[in-house]
Amino acid sequence: MMLAPPGADADPTADPFAVDCGPHTEATETLARALASSAAARDRRGGSALAERQRIRASGLLTLAVPQRFGGAGAGWPLIYRVVRRLAAADSSLAHVYGFQHLQVATILLYASVRQQERLLAATVQQNWFWGNATNPLDRQIALRPEGEHYVLEGIKTFCSGSIDADMLNVSAPGSAPGQRVIIAIPGTRPGVHPNGDWDALGQRQTDSGSVRFDRVIVQADEILGPPGVGGSPRATLRPLVSQLVLTEIYVGNALGALAAAAAYVREQARPWFDAGVARAADDPFVQLRFGALWSRYQAAAALADAAAQRLQQAWDLGESIGARERGETAVAIAAARVFAADAALDITAQVFDNMGARATAGHHGFDRYWRNVRTHSLHDPLDYKRRDIGRWLALGELPQASLYS
Amino acid sequence: MMLAPPGADADPTADPFAVDCGPHTEATETLARALASSAAARDRRGGSALAERQRIRASGLLTLAVPQRFGGAGAGWPLIYRVVRRLAAADSSLAHVYGFQHLQVATILLYASVRQQERLLAATVQQNWFWGNATNPLDRQIALRPEGEHYVLEGIKTFCSGSIDADMLNVSAPGSAPGQRVIIAIPGTRPGVHPNGDWDALGQRQTDSGSVRFDRVIVQADEILGPPGVGGSPRATLRPLVSQLVLTEIYVGNALGALAAAAAYVREQARPWFDAGVARAADDPFVQLRFGALWSRYQAAAALADAAAQRLQQAWDLGESIGARERGETAVAIAAARVFAADAALDITAQVFDNMGARATAGHHGFDRYWRNVRTHSLHDPLDYKRRDIGRWLALGELPQASLYS
Amino acid sequence: MMLAPPGADADPTADPFAVDCGPHTEATETLARALASSAAARDRRGGSALAERQRIRASGLLTLAVPQRFGGAGAGWPLIYRVVRRLAAADSSLAHVYGFQHLQVATILLYASVRQQERLLAATVQQNWFWGNATNPLDRQIALRPEGEHYVLEGIKTFCSGSIDADMLNVSAPGSAPGQRVIIAIPGTRPGVHPNGDWDALGQRQTDSGSVRFDRVIVQADEILGPPGVGGSPRATLRPLVSQLVLTEIYVGNALGALAAAAAYVREQARPWFDAGVARAADDPFVQLRFGALWSRYQAAAALADAAAQRLQQAWDLGESIGARERGETAVAIAAARVFAADAALDITAQVFDNMGARATAGHHGFDRYWRNVRTHSLHDPLDYKRRDIGRWLALGELPQASLYS
Amino acid sequence: MMLAPPGADADPTADPFAVDCGPHTEATETLARALASSAAARDRRGGSALAERQRIRASGLLTLAVPQRFGGAGAGWPLIYRVVRRLAAADSSLAHVYGFQHLQVATILLYASVRQQERLLAATVQQNWFWGNATNPLDRQIALRPEGEHYVLEGIKTFCSGSIDADMLNVSAPGSAPGQRVIIAIPGTRPGVHPNGDWDALGQRQTDSGSVRFDRVIVQADEILGPPGVGGSPRATLRPLVSQLVLTEIYVGNALGALAAAAAYVREQARPWFDAGVARAADDPFVQLRFGALWSRYQAAAALADAAAQRLQQAWDLGESIGARERGETAVAIAAARVFAADAALDITAQVFDNMGARATAGHHGFDRYWRNVRTHSLHDPLDYKRRDIGRWLALGELPQASLYS
Repeated sequence: MMLAPPGADADPTADPFAVDCGPHTEATETLARALASSAAARDRRGGSALAERQRIRASGLLTLAVPQRFGGAGAGWPLIYRVVRRLAAADSSLAHVYGFQHLQVATILLYASVRQQERLLAATVQQNWFWGNATNPLDRQIALRPEGEHYVLEGIKTFCSGSIDADMLNVSAPGSAPGQRVIIAIPGTRPGVHPNGDWDALGQRQTDSGSVRFDRVIVQADEILGPPGVGGSPRATLRPLVSQLVLTEIYVGNALGALAAAAAYVREQARPWFDAGVARAADDPFVQLRFGALWSRYQAAAALADAAAQRLQQAWDLGESIGARERGETAVAIAAARVFAADAALDITAQVFDNMGARATAGHHGFDRYWRNVRTHSLHDPLDYKRRDIGRWLALGELPQASLYS
Repeated sequence: MMLAPPGADADPTADPFAVDCGPHTEATETLARALASSAAARDRRGGSALAERQRIRASGLLTLAVPQRFGGAGAGWPLIYRVVRRLAAADSSLAHVYGFQHLQVATILLYASVRQQERLLAATVQQNWFWGNATNPLDRQIALRPEGEHYVLEGIKTFCSGSIDADMLNVSAPGSAPGQRVIIAIPGTRPGVHPNGDWDALGQRQTDSGSVRFDRVIVQADEILGPPGVGGSPRATLRPLVSQLVLTEIYVGNALGALAAAAAYVREQARPWFDAGVARAADDPFVQLRFGALWSRYQAAAALADAAAQRLQQAWDLGESIGARERGETAVAIAAARVFAADAALDITAQVFDNMGARATAGHHGFDRYWRNVRTHSLHDPLDYKRRDIGRWLALGELPQASLYS
Repeated sequence: MMLAPPGADADPTADPFAVDCGPHTEATETLARALASSAAARDRRGGSALAERQRIRASGLLTLAVPQRFGGAGAGWPLIYRVVRRLAAADSSLAHVYGFQHLQVATILLYASVRQQERLLAATVQQNWFWGNATNPLDRQIALRPEGEHYVLEGIKTFCSGSIDADMLNVSAPGSAPGQRVIIAIPGTRPGVHPNGDWDALGQRQTDSGSVRFDRVIVQADEILGPPGVGGSPRATLRPLVSQLVLTEIYVGNALGALAAAAAYVREQARPWFDAGVARAADDPFVQLRFGALWSRYQAAAALADAAAQRLQQAWDLGESIGARERGETAVAIAAARVFAADAALDITAQVFDNMGARATAGHHGFDRYWRNVRTHSLHDPLDYKRRDIGRWLALGELPQASLYS
Repeated sequence: MMLAPPGADADPTADPFAVDCGPHTEATETLARALASSAAARDRRGGSALAERQRIRASGLLTLAVPQRFGGAGAGWPLIYRVVRRLAAADSSLAHVYGFQHLQVATILLYASVRQQERLLAATVQQNWFWGNATNPLDRQIALRPEGEHYVLEGIKTFCSGSIDADMLNVSAPGSAPGQRVIIAIPGTRPGVHPNGDWDALGQRQTDSGSVRFDRVIVQADEILGPPGVGGSPRATLRPLVSQLVLTEIYVGNALGALAAAAAYVREQARPWFDAGVARAADDPFVQLRFGALWSRYQAAAALADAAAQRLQQAWDLGESIGARERGETAVAIAAARVFAADAALDITAQVFDNMGARATAGHHGFDRYWRNVRTHSLHDPLDYKRRDIGRWLALGELPQASLYS
C-alpha cells in the first residue's frame, strides 16, 4: 500500500493510505499486509479463514479493548477503530470479526458483573480468546429455559458473525420477564453448539455470519451476563454504539482499500486512453479529477468517524455517571458518521473503476469486493432510520431512543 | 440559534448549532447574534456594513491571530477558524472580511521582516486595526515604480474584499524582477486610494469586494513587506493555505446557518403537508429523513475542516523548518476540506428549502442568501483544479505546486 | 441563444438550445428573445411585467390550447409545453403565467358545462383574454355564499399567479356541500377584486403570485363552472396533471436557459484559468467535462418531460372514456417527470457557475435567477410526496389518489 | 415480472416493468422469462451459455435488423433496442451478445459491398446465424497478410464477445495502408480460430468476451468487407453509434431488472423494519420514497435512450446522404444517453438493496449481478471522454470526431 512517488525520499509519511494506529501501527500494518495478499482469492472462495484467524490471534491485537487491570492493552476506542479501518482496507471480512472481538469485550464490560468481568477478561488475555457472537436481536426461534440447577439453550440464531472457530460466544436470548433479553457467554466448543456454515452472501464472505443451531446447550447461571445485564444501566446502552462504529469503520476501510488499490493499478497497470493525449494513465486529467473528488469524500468520512470515536470515548469515560443527553448526543454523532461513511464508501468503491478502466474488471483482481463488502455490511440495519433519528433530534430536540441498534 | 427541545433542561450543550470557540465562545456568540438580527435585510441592501464593522472592532476578536509577544491573543488557527464558522452562520459577508483580517495578519507574519512585524502587529493591537486586502494575483493593471526616495503605486485592483473602511490595506503588485510580486501594507486612508464601491454580486453582498483605484499613491520602501516577502521562504508559502481555509469555513458556516434557520422555521412556522398525516411539519418522516442526511454531510464537512485546521497549525508550528513534504501534504489536506465543504454547502443550502416548503421563499426571510453566499464564494478559484492537485498527488505522489492559490 | 461555432455553416439546427415548437417555433422564438433581453433586470425589480404581458398577448400564442371549434389553435399538449419550455429559458416568470393561461383554458374544458365552454373559450379567442388564477386549494379564508339571485365571494386567496392585469380569473372556493369545491370564472376587473401586489419571493419574481382580496364580489350562478365542476368526472381529474407538467417545464426551461447562458459566457467572456494550460476557457477539459455531464442530465429531463406530455395527450384524447388506470398511470408518469426535472434543474442551474467562474457572479448578469426560479417553483407542492406516490404504485400497485395536486 | 396489485384487474398494462417491443413483444417476453429463470445461477457459474444461445436462435429474434429484402424482419433500431433492454433486465450477458448480433448485421450493412451484403445477410436469415465479434480496435497483436491468392490472419484479439459458439465472426485487423483497418467476416468454425475461453470478469460473466487466438487462419479476399469498408463513407461511421446504443440499453435494462426484482422482493419477502410502524415492508414510507426516486431516474434514462434511438434511425434513414452535422449531432445525442444511463444504472442497481434489506444479500438471489453487469460494461470506453465530447460541442460547436468509439 506504499506510494513511492518518483524521486521522493523514503519518509514513511509519504504513504497517503497509511493509517496511524499509534503504538500498534507496525503490528497492524504487518497483519494487514499478510491478510491482503490472499484477500481477493479468499473472497471468491468464501467459507472460513482459519489460517488468517490464527494470524490475527498471533498478532497480539485481540486484547486491545481489555483494560490493563485485566492484563489487556487498555487502548482507547479511537485507536481500536483505526486498527479496524486499516484491516478493513486489506480484508473486510476479517476486519469485521476482528472488530466484533472488541464489541464482545465491550459487552462483558457493559453487561457483566464485576466478578464475570474479571473471570472472562482475564481469560481473554491469558488464553488469547477470539470471541464470536450470536446476538441478532430480531431472532425469534431461540429460548433459554431453567432446568434444574442450570439452564438450557435451544433454537436457532442467525447472522452469527465469527461463530466458527470462536473460542467464546456471546449469545442473546429472551429473558424470563416479558421484553427482557439476556446475553450468555459460553465457549464456542460447548456441546450442542452447531454452526451451520451456511453463510454465502454477496460480500463479507469470510465472516462466518451464518446461522448457529443450539441443541440443548447447558448454560450455567453465572454464564448469563449481569447485573446490570442488557440495558440494565444507562452506561450499558452504549453497546450498540460500539457496534455501530465498527460498522462505520468497515465502510471507511473499504473505501480506503479501494482507493489504494486503484491508485496502484492506475500507476502500474492501467493504459492511458488513446484519445487522452497523455503518456501515462495517471496523467489523465479526468483520472486525477476523480481521484481528487473521491479522496476528499474519503477524508471527510474518515474525519467524521474519528470525531465520533472521540465522542464515544468521552461518553465511555463518564462511566456510570453518563446521562441521557450525553448518551443520546453520542448516538447522534455516531449515526451521522455511519450514514455518511456508508454513502461515501458505496460511491467510492464503485467509481474507482472509472479510473482503472475495462481491464480492471478481470475476476482475479477481485476489485469489486470492496463494493460488495460495503453493500452487504451497510444493510445491517436500515440507514434511513438512522437519518430519521438524527433529523428528529435536529427538528424536535428528541434524542434517539436507545435500542439494540441505536 | 438555540434549539429549545420541549421539556429539555437549559444545558447549553443542547444546541446542535453551537460552535465551540474555546475561551472566545461567548464573545463570538454575542457578536454572531448581533450580526444575525439584520443580516437578511442587509444582504438585500448590499453595500458597506459600517455599523457592523464597528461592532466587530468592539468585539475584541480582531487580534486573535496576533502573537502574544505583540499584545494579541495568540490564538491557534483551529480556534480562529471556529470563530469564522460561527460568524458565517450568522452573516457570511462580515465573516468573510473578519476571516480575511487574520489572513492579513498572517501575511505580515509570513512575508514581513521582523521589524515590520513588530511595527505593524503592535499597532494592529493598539489601534485595533481592521485590515482589508487588494491582493488578487490575477490583476494586470497595477504597477509599483520607484520614484525618488519612495515608490508610486498606480492602477486598478479587483476583488478587494474589506477595502472600504479598512484601517490598513495589503496590496499586491508586480515587483521589479520578472515574475516577482510584492505586497505593500499601507493605510486605507492614504491619499490616492479610491475604493470604487462597485461590488454588486449575487452573494457575499456586504464584503466590499469591489475594485480599488490607486491614483499615484506614495509608498515608502519599508511599506513593502520583506524579506522574506512573497514566497521568499518555504514557510511564506503557507499564506494561500491560510486563505483557503477561510474560504472553507465560509461554506461550512453557511451550511450551519441554513440548517439552523431551517430547523427553527420547520419547528415554529412550517405547516405540515395536508397528505402527511402528521400534526406538525417537524413530525413529517420525509422532513426528518432529509434533515438527517443533510446534518450528516454538514458534520463531515465540519470534521474535515477541523482536521485540516489542526494540520495547518502543525505546519505553522514547524516555523522555518517546514519542508516541501509537510507543506505539500498540508496543502492537499486543506484542498480536500475546501472542495468537500463547497459541494456539501451548495447542496445543503439548496435542500433545506424542501423541508421548509413554499412559504419559506418569501423574500423577507432571505433564506436564499446562504446558497448565494456559498455559490459566490466557492468560485474564488476553480475547485476542479484543487481536485486535480489532490488526484495528481494520490496517483503520482506529486505534491501541489505552491502558488498564490494553493 | 444561437450557438455560432467557428467555421460552421448557418444551418439553424446548429443551435443546441433551440426548442422545436412545430408551426409556432418562430413566434415562440421571437417572443422569447424579446423577453430575454430584459429578463435579468426585471427579475431584480420584481413587480408586474405589464409591457411584457402585452407582448405575450400580441404574440398570438395565448390561444394554443383552445380547440379549433372555438376558434383557437387547437394545439396538442406536447407542443404547448415546448412553448412553455422555450419561454422559461428566456423568462421564467412570464413563462409561468403563460403556462398557467393554458391551465385555465384546460380548467374550462374540464370543469365547465358545454354552454360555459362555448361562451368563455370563444371570448378567450375573440378578446385575446389573458387568464390568471386564484385557485390555491389550501386557502381557508374564502367563502362563497348565495345571496338573492346571485352569490357573494368574500375573503383572501394566496399564491394567485397572474392575478394582476388578468382579463379573467379562475377562483376556487368551498362549495355548499361538505368537502365540495367550486371554481368560478370572473373578470379580473370585477368590482371588489383587489390583488394585493404583495408578491416578493426569492424567485419567479414577476409572476404576480401574491394574495388577492375579494371584497363582496358578486358572482352569477353561471360563472360557477359545471357540471361537471371540480372533480365531477374522471376526466375532470386531469386538471392537476396539466398543472404539474407546467411546473415541470419551468424547471426544464430554466435548466436550458442556464446552460445556454453559461455556454455563451464561457465562449465569449470567461477567462481561462491560469493553471489550465489552455488559451480559451472553452478549451478547459474540466469545463467541457462538466458541460457534458450537465447537458446529459438536461436532455434526460427534457426527454422524460416530452414523454410525459405525450402520455397526457393520450389520456386527454380518451375523453370521457378515461378509466382509473389510465388516469393513475398518467399521474405517475407526470410525477416522475416533475421530480426528475426539479432535481436536475436545481443542480444544473447551480453548477453552471463552476464553468463560468468568479466574475459571472456580478449582479448585472443575473445568472442566479435560474436557480432561484427553480428553487421557488419546485416547492409548489412537496416533491417527496410525489416520490412516495410513485413508489407506492411501484411497490404495491396502488395508483395515486387524484387530489388537487396529483 | 408481472406486478399483480391487490384487487387490480388483469389488464397487462398494469405491469410497470413491461417493455413494449411492438409486434415482437410476446416473443421477447417469452425469451426473457426463459432466460431469467436461470440467470442468477448461470452468473455465478460464468462460462458459455450454450443452451440459452440455442433458445435465442429458436426465438426468431436474431434477424430483426436484417432488411426485408434479404428476408429479415427489417425492424427499426428503436424496436431492436427495446428488445435488448427487455432481455438485459432478464439476463444481461445474453442481452449483450444478442445486442451485438445486430451490431454485426449493421457492420455488414455499413461496411460490406452490395454483393457481400447479399451473400452474408441472406445466409444470416436462412441459416439463422448467431454472429460474434473480435473487433477491439485497441488490439496490437493481430496481423493480416496476403499470401498467394488469399490472406492469412495471425495473432490475438481480446474482448471478443460472443466468440464462442459463433456461427460467424467479424474480426478487425490493421489493413495494408498506414492507419487503415479492415473487418473480415469468417465462420467461427474456420480452422485456426481458437477462442481461449478465458473470460472471467466481475460481471457480464456469460458473454464469452475473452480472447481469441488466430492461428494462421486463411481468409479469402471477398471475406474482407468493402468497399466502402471501415469508415469508408460518412454513413459507415454510424457503426460505433449502433454499438454505443447497445451498451446504453444494457445499462437501462439492468436498472429495470433490478427495480423489478426489488419490487417483487419487497412485496413478497422483505420484512418491515421493527421500528417502522408498518405491517408490510412495502408500506414503509422510506421504501416508497426511494422507489419513487429510483423509478424517476430509470424513466429518464429510458426516455433519453428511446429518443437517441429515434435519432439514430433518422440518421440511418438518410442513407448515403448523411452529412457531418447529422452524424455528429446523432453522436452527441447517443453519448448523452449512454453517460446518463450508466450513472443512473450504477446508482439504481446499488440502491435497490436499501429497500430490500440485509437478507437480500444472500448469494442465491444474485441481486448484485445487476450492479456488476453495469459496472463491467460501462467501462467499455471511458464515459468521461463522452462527456468531454458533448461539452466540447456545447461550448465550441465542435462535433465529436468519428472514431471507433464515437
